[in-house]
Amino acid sequence: MKKAIVLLSGGLDSATCLAKARAEGFECYALSFDYGQRHRCEITASEAVAKQLGAAEFRCFKLDLSQWGGSALTDSNIEVPDHSDGGIPITYVPARNMIFLSLAVAWGEVLGAHDIFIGVNSVDYSGYPDCRRQFIGSFAETARLGTCAVDEKWQWNIHTPLQELSKAEIIKLGMSLGVDYSLTTSCYNPDADGRSCGKCDSCFLRHRGFIAAGVDDPTKYVDNVKF
Amino acid sequence: MKKAIVLLSGGLDSATCLAKARAEGFECYALSFDYGQRHRCEITASEAVAKQLGAAEFRCFKLDLSQWGGSALTDSNIEVPDHSDGGIPITYVPARNMIFLSLAVAWGEVLGAHDIFIGVNSVDYSGYPDCRRQFIGSFAETARLGTCAVDEKWQWNIHTPLQELSKAEIIKLGMSLGVDYSLTTSCYNPDADGRSCGKCDSCFLRHRGFIAAGVDDPTKYVDNVKF
Repeated sequence: MKKAIVLLSGGLDSATCLAKARAEGFECYALSFDYGQRHRCEITASEAVAKQLGAAEFRCFKLDLSQWGGSALTDSNIEVPDHSDGGIPITYVPARNMIFLSLAVAWGEVLGAHDIFIGVNSVDYSGYPDCRRQFIGSFAETARLGTCAVDEKWQWNIHTPLQELSKAEIIKLGMSLGVDYSLTTSCYNPDADGRSCGKCDSCFLRHRGFIAAGVDDPTKYVDNVKF
Repeated sequence: MKKAIVLLSGGLDSATCLAKARAEGFECYALSFDYGQRHRCEITASEAVAKQLGAAEFRCFKLDLSQWGGSALTDSNIEVPDHSDGGIPITYVPARNMIFLSLAVAWGEVLGAHDIFIGVNSVDYSGYPDCRRQFIGSFAETARLGTCAVDEKWQWNIHTPLQELSKAEIIKLGMSLGVDYSLTTSCYNPDADGRSCGKCDSCFLRHRGFIAAGVDDPTKYVDNVKF
C-alpha cells in the first residue's frame, strides 16, 4: 500500500484531509506539532482523529516556535482578535506551513512516502500566504531539489484536496467519508477545558460552515456564545 | 544596522560565513540546532564561534530529527563511514537544510531580518542535494510566496558566500576575517571529549583544506590519526 504523510492539526480541515487520503487508498502517517501554540488541546484532538480515521501511525513532533513568538497563536502577549476581514491576520505564524511541510518531507523520505496531504484552503483562509496554491507548488519543487528526489528522478506530490472547497463543501465531503467532527477543534483561543471561544476567526468560519452545510455544529463552546 | 540570520553549525564553513556577514556590515543573529545529531559538541563550538565573531545573539533551537533517523548523523544504528566518493552519502540528513532555513525564515520574519546566510558549498560537498545552488534559489522563492514577503513586496536574500569556493579558499577567506578555526569542529563522529575522528568525509575534506591553504590544522584529533 502506498504511504502518505498527512499533516494533522486537530481541526476539521485536516481531519477531512486524512479521510480523503484514506479514501484514496493511502496508508497514512499522521503528523502533528506541539509548537508552543496556545490552543494545545488540538494535539489531543489530532490523536483522536488519527485513531478514528485509521492512521497507521500518529506522531506529535515537538518544536518551540513560541521562543520567538510573532503571532497571536505563539505569543501569550498578543491577544487573539475577534473575527475580522482583510490583510494577513495576526494569527499567521511565521513560516509555519513551510516548517511543517519540511518536516513532513523529512519523515516521508525516511519512510519512503512521497505523498503529503495538507488541508490548506484558499477560500476561507486566503489571508494566510502559506495556504495559497502558488506557495504549495513552489514548495514541492524546492523539496524535489533539496532531497534525494532530484538525483533519483521522482517528485514530491503535495496533495491539497481542500484547496478550492468552501467550508460547507469540506464538511459535506468529510461527512460522506465518515469523519466525526465532534472530535475536532478549530478554536484559536479555547478555555482550559478545551471549549471553543466562539469569537475568533477560526470559530466564526467553522460555525458558518456547519450552518451552510446544513449540519448541526458539534463544537463544544464556552457558555453564552453568540454568533 | 541591517539584521541577518546566520546558520551556524560549529564547523569551519559556517564560521567563515558569519565572519563574512559581519564584514558586510550585518548585525548577526546566529542560529544553531540541537537536532539529535551524534556530534553534539558542535553546539558548544557554535556558541564559542558566535561569541568570538561578535554575533548579536546566539540561539540553539531544539528539534529531534533522530526520532525518525534516516542518516548516519541522526541514527546511532547507522555507522559513520570512512571517507569515500560518489553519490549522496549516508550522512545526508533528510531535508535538513530546508528545515533549518525554514526556521531561519521564521525567526527572521519576527526580527525583521530578510537576509539569511548559510555556508553551503558546491565544491567539496556536492553530494548533498540541499547544498546546491538550484535548491537555495528555489527555497528563496518558496519562502517569499509563503510569508508576508509576498504581500508586502519584498524578498528573502539567501546569501551563500561560500558556494563556489574550495575548502582552501574558504579557510584563507576566514583567516583574513579573523576566524579562530581552533574553536570550530567538523567531525561527524567525534569521541566523548569532542576530538575529531580523522576518518570521516568531513575530517578528510577539512584536513585537506588546511593543507591546501598552507595553514596549520588546529583540529584536535583522537590519537594515532593517519591521513
